[in-house]
Amino acid sequence: MNTKALHKISYGLYIVTSGKEGRYNGQIANTAFQISSEPATIAISINKQNLTNEFIRDSKLFTVSVLDQETPLSLVGQFGFKSGREVDKFAGVNYQIGRSGVPYITGHTLAYLEAKVLQEIDAKTHTIFIGEVTGAEVMKEGLPMTYAYYQQVKRGSVPVTAPAYAPKQEKKAVIEDKYVCSICGYVYDPAVGDPENGIPPGTTFDKLPDEWTCPVCGVGKNMFEKDR
Amino acid sequence: MNTKALHKISYGLYIVTSGKEGRYNGQIANTAFQISSEPATIAISINKQNLTNEFIRDSKLFTVSVLDQETPLSLVGQFGFKSGREVDKFAGVNYQIGRSGVPYITGHTLAYLEAKVLQEIDAKTHTIFIGEVTGAEVMKEGLPMTYAYYQQVKRGSVPVTAPAYAPKQEKKAVIEDKYVCSICGYVYDPAVGDPENGIPPGTTFDKLPDEWTCPVCGVGKNMFEKDR
Repeated sequence: MNTKALHKISYGLYIVTSGKEGRYNGQIANTAFQISSEPATIAISINKQNLTNEFIRDSKLFTVSVLDQETPLSLVGQFGFKSGREVDKFAGVNYQIGRSGVPYITGHTLAYLEAKVLQEIDAKTHTIFIGEVTGAEVMKEGLPMTYAYYQQVKRGSVPVTAPAYAPKQEKKAVIEDKYVCSICGYVYDPAVGDPENGIPPGTTFDKLPDEWTCPVCGVGKNMFEKDR
Repeated sequence: MNTKALHKISYGLYIVTSGKEGRYNGQIANTAFQISSEPATIAISINKQNLTNEFIRDSKLFTVSVLDQETPLSLVGQFGFKSGREVDKFAGVNYQIGRSGVPYITGHTLAYLEAKVLQEIDAKTHTIFIGEVTGAEVMKEGLPMTYAYYQQVKRGSVPVTAPAYAPKQEKKAVIEDKYVCSICGYVYDPAVGDPENGIPPGTTFDKLPDEWTCPVCGVGKNMFEKDR
């Protein structure tokens, strides 16, 4: 059995939000799919450890913001690598409160879908929430961010609570110049740089300015380790 | 509410197979996703009207073949627009019987995943099957076929039992030269031609050879109507 076969499955990249009465949370999710057309129903799969899961179970509401391909890593990091138990994930983020009372992300969102939970399915580590779509708008045209694009082109990393996370295997290749963030797993590769934050390709890790922070989770250079 | 927002969700393209004791069936599906890592579990969403649904409920087994981007429309048509109640979908198709006893598609498959059903969830028109992965292999490297690629680049059509099917709206644009297959909805566009079957771009519909058939569902030219 080769579990790498699982990596051939295609996913999108979404911010799933929930909450009520002014207490909101949201998280990055790679699984959202339509079930039926009339009425329109969608489903999501959310790790039980996540605060968003608690908020959805409580409010019976969730909203899916479909991210575009230009979404900066910092937004993915804000919703993917921080916990709403510790930070206000909406601080510094553009959002609006939808008709259902749940916020959706604006700015890097192609479309959003508001849903009311019809069914909750206990799937061991995750809950699958099936919801009837109560609101939906297209915000702009463009290409949706796919998980493959995020991983390959944007060089994103995967949080440990994501379904696609796999415990690290022993490394074979030795490339001394890459540095990996000990918090979120983002890999700084000098050949790529960090153009989104003004760092051109060819910049070695030691040449990064002291104020440079991990583009995904925001920690400082001191939290990076040489990739072995 | 704009239900076009649903079209911004990202999907892959798979052939889901099932059966037992030499009676097999399979179908095109755009929804497959991993739920948990240990044990590895995956889920699929299958229309209740489809024979494959019946076979999965009966055998408690399903296999997901992940199609590559080069998959010909004819293979998609074979598994997406014909019913296993009427034809043997495996006729003329390369496949092997996996360890679970269910066939997987070879040739245009990047990877396959064999699963044993743990849970069946009744989701109105569809059943969501959650299965533990009992076998998985990577067949070759390459890009997986995504639903977006299939629709945009391969100009595929959508069967009416697919979750993403939406009843046709009134057409706005009038482009007289396109012809649409009355069986599967495939659109022949002279600007694109049908290079997979030796028809170069620029070939008008009336210039197509008499023996030309719909690249998706295989019916003859007489089943096409001018796209209004």
